[in-house]
Amino acid sequence: MKIGVLGTGMVGQTLGTKLVSLGHDVKMGARDAKNEKAASFSAKSGDKASHGTFADAAAFGEILFVCTNGNGTLPALRAAGADNLAGKVLVDISNPLDFSKGMPPTLFAGNSDSLGELIQKEFPDAKVVKTLNTINCSLMVDPGRVGGGDHTVFVSGNDASAKARVTEILKTWFGWKDVLDLGDITSARGPESYLLLWLRTYVALRTADFNVKIVR
Amino acid sequence: MKIGVLGTGMVGQTLGTKLVSLGHDVKMGARDAKNEKAASFSAKSGDKASHGTFADAAAFGEILFVCTNGNGTLPALRAAGADNLAGKVLVDISNPLDFSKGMPPTLFAGNSDSLGELIQKEFPDAKVVKTLNTINCSLMVDPGRVGGGDHTVFVSGNDASAKARVTEILKTWFGWKDVLDLGDITSARGPESYLLLWLRTYVALRTADFNVKIVR
Repeated sequence: MKIGVLGTGMVGQTLGTKLVSLGHDVKMGARDAKNEKAASFSAKSGDKASHGTFADAAAFGEILFVCTNGNGTLPALRAAGADNLAGKVLVDISNPLDFSKGMPPTLFAGNSDSLGELIQKEFPDAKVVKTLNTINCSLMVDPGRVGGGDHTVFVSGNDASAKARVTEILKTWFGWKDVLDLGDITSARGPESYLLLWLRTYVALRTADFNVKIVR
Repeated sequence: MKIGVLGTGMVGQTLGTKLVSLGHDVKMGARDAKNEKAASFSAKSGDKASHGTFADAAAFGEILFVCTNGNGTLPALRAAGADNLAGKVLVDISNPLDFSKGMPPTLFAGNSDSLGELIQKEFPDAKVVKTLNTINCSLMVDPGRVGGGDHTVFVSGNDASAKARVTEILKTWFGWKDVLDLGDITSARGPESYLLLWLRTYVALRTADFNVKIVR
């Protein structure tokens, strides 16, 4: 499948590399078509990988992964262009973290709104599915790293078939066993706000190799 | 031990009943000394139980459990009186939920502050420990109800010995196996913000009988 990955940081690199290893064609998008990290990704990932602008990656992908820093998400999607997003499943992994007031970061959305909702509102023709934002990127694509993979990832979104497709991807491509559908895109407030607990747990445990399991 | 329980709702009733069953002397406090729910609690709980004002309960208890609704917490503690709180372990279970804008509720604290911190700031001589706010009250005192009790409860607070004492209470009185110390009272932002994920999970699962386990 042709997949667009928006963002060149750790999350984009890890997901892009995993998707290529699964045999997909991946185009990594950045603000600048000559972005060094995107170029390095496609150089080392072989024929299946390429890079370009956010618009290039969005036009290329049948499905898109949003891996930008939270405050770069809406600008990246504007640069990608609404026409390139329309009708597509937009997997939003980004978090509304605000580092401008020092550490630990606060959230610029997540209580009475969420970044997932802000995206869906501005791009009503995209099928936004919020997921994977609650774990470190190495766990995203390899949940078996801790607890034998016996822990939970959440999905939120308005489009049932888009959520079903993302759930299938999480299970069959990445190996997730427990995918919990929280509801429509407003439910993204839950996993986005959870980031504040993630950050404190990260400090307490001194490792990012953990996740929550919803025990029921 | 003499214990003060502030608040007469489900949380206060459940905790009060459990504490009496463990052999402790419990005084339930309310705004009004003649509060019917507090009177009913002490009537049905035998000689070990009594009730009175917030100040009565706070003066009585060697350790205090704050079981009020979040927006009633600071008023209840002001009514209890700073002198009655000074030097005591104050187990804060309340959540900063704001129902005034409809359902689901939002938080009136939890991002750049928390209810735990607001309490500690206003009552600097109390030893505030935030805990148990992340689960339904029946699970608080009986974690074995789900998953054989294999899930996590958090503690946050500035006073190490107060946290150690509360951790001991959680383990030996209530049966908790995994108590995670998140750090000082500012870390209460984590478990308080998590409530927004709790609420969405509650809707998705249609039961309050669940909790998170931090799988690491």
